[in-house]
Amino acid sequence: MQNFTFANPVKIIFGKGTVSRLGPEAAKAGRKALLVYGGGSIKKNGVYEALTAALKQNGVAFVEHAGVKPNPVLSHAREGIKKARENGCDLVVAAGGGSVIDESKAIAAGVKYGGEVWDFFCGKADIKEALPLFTVLTLPATGSEMNNGCVVTNEEKKQKYSAHGAALFPKASIMDPETTMSLPRTQVANGAVDSIAHLIESYFTTSDRDVTVTDEIVHALARSVIASTDRILKDPSDYSARASMMWSATLALNGLAGCGYSGTSFPNHVIEHSLSALYDIAHGAGLAIVMPAWFKYHLEKSGPERFEKFGAAVFGVKGAEAAIKAFEDFFRKAGAPVRLSEAHIPAADIPRIAENAMGLITMWGMSLKQAEVEEILKRAA
Amino acid sequence: MQNFTFANPVKIIFGKGTVSRLGPEAAKAGRKALLVYGGGSIKKNGVYEALTAALKQNGVAFVEHAGVKPNPVLSHAREGIKKARENGCDLVVAAGGGSVIDESKAIAAGVKYGGEVWDFFCGKADIKEALPLFTVLTLPATGSEMNNGCVVTNEEKKQKYSAHGAALFPKASIMDPETTMSLPRTQVANGAVDSIAHLIESYFTTSDRDVTVTDEIVHALARSVIASTDRILKDPSDYSARASMMWSATLALNGLAGCGYSGTSFPNHVIEHSLSALYDIAHGAGLAIVMPAWFKYHLEKSGPERFEKFGAAVFGVKGAEAAIKAFEDFFRKAGAPVRLSEAHIPAADIPRIAENAMGLITMWGMSLKQAEVEEILKRAA
Repeated sequence: MQNFTFANPVKIIFGKGTVSRLGPEAAKAGRKALLVYGGGSIKKNGVYEALTAALKQNGVAFVEHAGVKPNPVLSHAREGIKKARENGCDLVVAAGGGSVIDESKAIAAGVKYGGEVWDFFCGKADIKEALPLFTVLTLPATGSEMNNGCVVTNEEKKQKYSAHGAALFPKASIMDPETTMSLPRTQVANGAVDSIAHLIESYFTTSDRDVTVTDEIVHALARSVIASTDRILKDPSDYSARASMMWSATLALNGLAGCGYSGTSFPNHVIEHSLSALYDIAHGAGLAIVMPAWFKYHLEKSGPERFEKFGAAVFGVKGAEAAIKAFEDFFRKAGAPVRLSEAHIPAADIPRIAENAMGLITMWGMSLKQAEVEEILKRAA
Repeated sequence: MQNFTFANPVKIIFGKGTVSRLGPEAAKAGRKALLVYGGGSIKKNGVYEALTAALKQNGVAFVEHAGVKPNPVLSHAREGIKKARENGCDLVVAAGGGSVIDESKAIAAGVKYGGEVWDFFCGKADIKEALPLFTVLTLPATGSEMNNGCVVTNEEKKQKYSAHGAALFPKASIMDPETTMSLPRTQVANGAVDSIAHLIESYFTTSDRDVTVTDEIVHALARSVIASTDRILKDPSDYSARASMMWSATLALNGLAGCGYSGTSFPNHVIEHSLSALYDIAHGAGLAIVMPAWFKYHLEKSGPERFEKFGAAVFGVKGAEAAIKAFEDFFRKAGAPVRLSEAHIPAADIPRIAENAMGLITMWGMSLKQAEVEEILKRAA
């Protein structure tokens, strides 16, 4: 078990009817919020009404910045930075899923930075400060509500890159599972796949494999995601399943599921970022395509041990191949695509995807070579 | 799954050779520390030397307050408060196990309070502020290094009571598993039992039993504690097992293992506090005596469901009785007493113990009656 630092100051307010509790939290931090959201689903599920009423009631004015895209784009983040500056916003409130929260983080950091916000994503600058951020999560998937990272796509450069910094931790995040009740089935599937992806990257890439406590936590959260998803697919109104799914997805990427591992990397995310950047497919869908392929490649390269352990603990199956099949079966059952063709991405594009992936791989100093990425993607054809 | 709030700002610095990292952390908070420790084991395991050197190097002066007892007593906490005030200490550094950290919390809150520190423990006052606290943990057991509670014994009144408050969260806690390598076997056993006790109270007393994610986390941490303890007992120099044990014990009582449960209580702790208050036995030893008895009582009262679930997931056994036997076997194997007689406590004292327990039961508004506590303790005779 390797040395680590764990520090996560996010206050989570979880449960039914909690959206209005954002008001008093936000009022501690500022007087005027940039209210960031997406395509308007928060106007249908009651979040917008409860949230704006709570802000008003607590003396927090707000300026709206709507229209965040599922893979949030740099140009829209830049508009948000401009709007926040012009209106003198001193805090940011994000209401939506991971994309809304991620763009909000970029805005919160960008407002305080003299240069171009993309600098944080391409490694030219470190995030030193940011406007205080508050979130109302409506889609369990990315964990952004309880971590300090964000992913934004530079549409011009076709780069889906990430930025991190302690200043990006939300001050408080509201998680009301009832707001997830009306999610379309594809978003349920994508959220489940994304959570599993967050759990497996470090677990399978760690060079130190003697970390009992974190292995157990990874297994526990994966089992919870899978069992909850099964229940949600059977009965979308199952509140307890929605709640377990929501909290599991948060814990899957709040730092806990990587403590003590070493030399870890995020190969599936790196490759998926290229699929999203080039084809604008949902992050979860891209991951469901990449993971089975990477698993097959990784099994050949690193042996069956971790697959056997995970398969036995999470799926109750024996052997590495059976574990990989169980992953794929779960993704498929949830309704996610598991091959490039199922997302209408031609196999002939593989070299182009791999070439795109090299940007992030090089920036992150990963050892993956372009030929290896192609090898992995061929297994997804 | 019930509504909850989770907020835990403690910075954990975990791993080999990390003790000296307390210096820069402490220097952010103040200039003069009250350095609290126990019987001097930190002078044998290298912690004292590394810690005091780091404080000096970072310009933090310190005044020593040694001699904390395993069940820390109010009179010694009062001395600490006096010493901190007289010397103008503006932070507290605790180096040791849960007892040292708990007394340090009482001191940190007491220094800032005009009244008598016991007020916080008997419900007469709320903790509103405290000196910033830093810890170096040397004994995995209580979780105090990452929570906001503390337990102190009032020797005159024979009351072992607790106090809580957000101001008591340590600013940073150092956890170096190597400092636990020299622990005597009984402390390994007591720590393991204490961790298990923290995991089972809410799990078995929750009225809402449909909380998949937290059930899974409880199972995961319990499995980790048990597997790590088995390894430590076989090979005390097994670093990875020491490390998994240490982090598991922290996570067992940092709030995570109770999220979403409802109507929970701590019956085993309440009864054990009376054993420690009256007989000054180790907390873990007392818990190992109370838990099997309470399990038998609780099974009769609340049915087999939770026992069956826990037994299957953690011990791989079928049925409630087998689960209770597995708990008891684990405590026994670790070397803890599991009956009152094994701790030389006469069964004739049961009414007196139960009477003592009523103090805390009444203060906490629990529904347990004295006759019920006696019924439970009879099963430990």
